[in-house]
Amino acid sequence: MRIALGLQYDGAAYCGWQSQLHGKTVQDEVERALRAFATVPLHTVVAGRTDTGVHALGQVLHFDTDLNRETQSWVRGVNAFLPSSVAIQWARIVDDAFHARFAAFERTYYYVLYVHPVRAPMIAARAGWVHTPLDVDAMREAAAHWIGEHDFSSFRSSECQSKTPVKHLYDIDIRTRGAFIHFRFRGNAFLHHMVRNLMGSLISIGRGREPAAWAATLLAARDRKIAAPTFMPDGLYLADVGYPAEFALPKPTLGSEPWSEVWNER
Amino acid sequence: MRIALGLQYDGAAYCGWQSQLHGKTVQDEVERALRAFATVPLHTVVAGRTDTGVHALGQVLHFDTDLNRETQSWVRGVNAFLPSSVAIQWARIVDDAFHARFAAFERTYYYVLYVHPVRAPMIAARAGWVHTPLDVDAMREAAAHWIGEHDFSSFRSSECQSKTPVKHLYDIDIRTRGAFIHFRFRGNAFLHHMVRNLMGSLISIGRGREPAAWAATLLAARDRKIAAPTFMPDGLYLADVGYPAEFALPKPTLGSEPWSEVWNER
Repeated sequence: MRIALGLQYDGAAYCGWQSQLHGKTVQDEVERALRAFATVPLHTVVAGRTDTGVHALGQVLHFDTDLNRETQSWVRGVNAFLPSSVAIQWARIVDDAFHARFAAFERTYYYVLYVHPVRAPMIAARAGWVHTPLDVDAMREAAAHWIGEHDFSSFRSSECQSKTPVKHLYDIDIRTRGAFIHFRFRGNAFLHHMVRNLMGSLISIGRGREPAAWAATLLAARDRKIAAPTFMPDGLYLADVGYPAEFALPKPTLGSEPWSEVWNER
Repeated sequence: MRIALGLQYDGAAYCGWQSQLHGKTVQDEVERALRAFATVPLHTVVAGRTDTGVHALGQVLHFDTDLNRETQSWVRGVNAFLPSSVAIQWARIVDDAFHARFAAFERTYYYVLYVHPVRAPMIAARAGWVHTPLDVDAMREAAAHWIGEHDFSSFRSSECQSKTPVKHLYDIDIRTRGAFIHFRFRGNAFLHHMVRNLMGSLISIGRGREPAAWAATLLAARDRKIAAPTFMPDGLYLADVGYPAEFALPKPTLGSEPWSEVWNER
């Protein structure tokens, strides 16, 4: 039997999702809790292997098991063994054809950016921070150059294990609200560090260091060395993963994060 | 020369404001940073001595010094010595008649409550959590009994050092937004644990364990033993401190916390 779980975590204290020999990871926490609840080891496959410091509101994973438990008890039971920084949000029995990573056709990331002369403790490690104003219209103009299917080599980490640098970016939406700028990236898949690298270049343009057309130049160059440095992970959230409707998975519990409602407004 | 500072902190990692022999406190962090910047010890007086786990968006403190620095350099300079969980928001030279604690005529606290069957990691230690729905109208009706000048002994911690249990509660406002219930308490001053004790009794009423009129019974009893247990500190924020206009202090940077904008809406 294959079970899918919806998962949220605060990535600030973790070296990313993926298990490592050294360093605390979310996968280690989740598999430890699953084992404590199920009393047998369970191996998980995740939709998006988030990086150090990156958060998840709508992460999805699956595992196979012979255990016959009520789906709700996978939520309550496993959460009892998880720290406050990680929580299962829902559980579903899914068809064996479901695969958390390969069945996903869309990923949505949020980047939350705080723009203020002084830093704000309550959102430390939860939002990126720049202390000078940014030109939002220039950033929107720049982002438009990246929409579509492109070779994103200029925004690809040297550690990226993807088979191809060609990804399809469906949309980049940018909204301002109070002292925050909210970015939403939707695409079929993302290269390692891709959103943080796009953010780095957007911020260079927002600061006026480069013109909006620089976004097109970077894309055409297919060369990581000429784009801006990787921006801080603090404000990055894996918000949603899209699967074919036949799997009938629940939508993520986005209301738990106050800024997610930005995206519910017209 | 007397200097006033506006301060924000994430109280999750601290044993409250007040210096202690054992335990990490916000006052210790702030006075350590002030000393590092000023190169001499500076003793601070604070508006509200927040408890373990309680946050501040609009805390105010003052200290006396002979050092002549630009006010902005007190912000940037001291912040450079503070951890990410604490940050000075503004600095002003004030009249010697100013006193952070005794000149204050109003304190505003927020309580942020998440109501959902499953806990949410991104707001762990930042919002209170109840997993069953609450009757908001009953809580509003209950809260109305407490407005005005009353003896709040039923909601006073045994460790409270206030000279009198009589405080003037100006207003309790309750608003719902998505999965959150937002509470705002305004009063001249608050007893030790008073907001958390009022919250505990409001939640008993919201759950239907007690009728709204129980709020009046509790107040009249002047007996801590009959009211509900102290509610968790996680969602409690010292949001604002009011001083006479002649001191011309800035308002707190409330926009840094997404839920503070709840209170800007009509």
